Amino acid sequence: MTNPPAAETRWLNDEEQSIWRAYHHAWTLLEDHLDRQLQRDAGMPHIYYGLLVLLSDAPRRRMRMTDLAQNAKITRSRLSHAVSRLEKKGWVRRENSPEDRRGQLAVLTDEGFEVLKESAPGHVETVRAAIFDRLTPEQARSLGEICRVMAEGLQPEGADLPWLR
Amino acid sequence: MTNPPAAETRWLNDEEQSIWRAYHHAWTLLEDHLDRQLQRDAGMPHIYYGLLVLLSDAPRRRMRMTDLAQNAKITRSRLSHAVSRLEKKGWVRRENSPEDRRGQLAVLTDEGFEVLKESAPGHVETVRAAIFDRLTPEQARSLGEICRVMAEGLQPEGADLPWLR
Repeated sequence: MTNPPAAETRWLNDEEQSIWRAYHHAWTLLEDHLDRQLQRDAGMPHIYYGLLVLLSDAPRRRMRMTDLAQNAKITRSRLSHAVSRLEKKGWVRRENSPEDRRGQLAVLTDEGFEVLKESAPGHVETVRAAIFDRLTPEQARSLGEICRVMAEGLQPEGADLPWLR
Repeated sequence: MTNPPAAETRWLNDEEQSIWRAYHHAWTLLEDHLDRQLQRDAGMPHIYYGLLVLLSDAPRRRMRMTDLAQNAKITRSRLSHAVSRLEKKGWVRRENSPEDRRGQLAVLTDEGFEVLKESAPGHVETVRAAIFDRLTPEQARSLGEICRVMAEGLQPEGADLPWLR
């Protein structure tokens, strides 16, 4: 994108600024909160936990690295770094894909599955306390709807996003 | 926190899971989107941009490192790393505090202020396109309200949070 000249910029008004700040503030606080809970209780940040969850939901607890990156919405290089760390912990291992010699699979180990099982209750409790215990049912539903609308705009069909390359 | 036994865990029901996934999904996509826009147009990730904005709003464009960490909701060590990178770019410099010999100030340089001025239109346009062009005015207001409720719960008075230490 070429920046528009400042004179044509559609600056945020006071209300929009306050909404944007509240959204950014809540997300920064929640991300930090989840990271600290998982770091303390499971020895990993939230992003690693998310990768283990994706693998545990996949058939035979394994996924192609490209699919895992795409599902986690992270770049291949960031995923590769994370999987190396998870390998060192013994929670994930890499395998060559039997169908595609260039492809690599990430596989959740039994140990990784155990860690996930042990840390899931604490994580879910943290999410519930931060969101569902705070919001009314209408607010929670409205949050889901709003976020679906935003996500749709950020990932249109055919978009050239890093994890789709 | 000690994890509750799994039997007592208040697991998320299908609707709650779908709301939580939508929220997490939207925030991951938006964070990535803002990072890429700012990296491309201003040579920095979103978190650095946020630090420059905080400094530009402060009196005489300077803040104590402890106050900056608290306002940005990041740990001192993460801030210190970020400020070192911003110093190398010539956008921020550190000064000893005149009032407090142990305290250090982060100061926005003229060059940093220029970079901010040049990149602000593109950043604001990106935020507007992602949020305010997508949501109805009622949804936007509701998003602000929901996020304020969540943030309040995550940062109660007197909480022992890393950036308050």
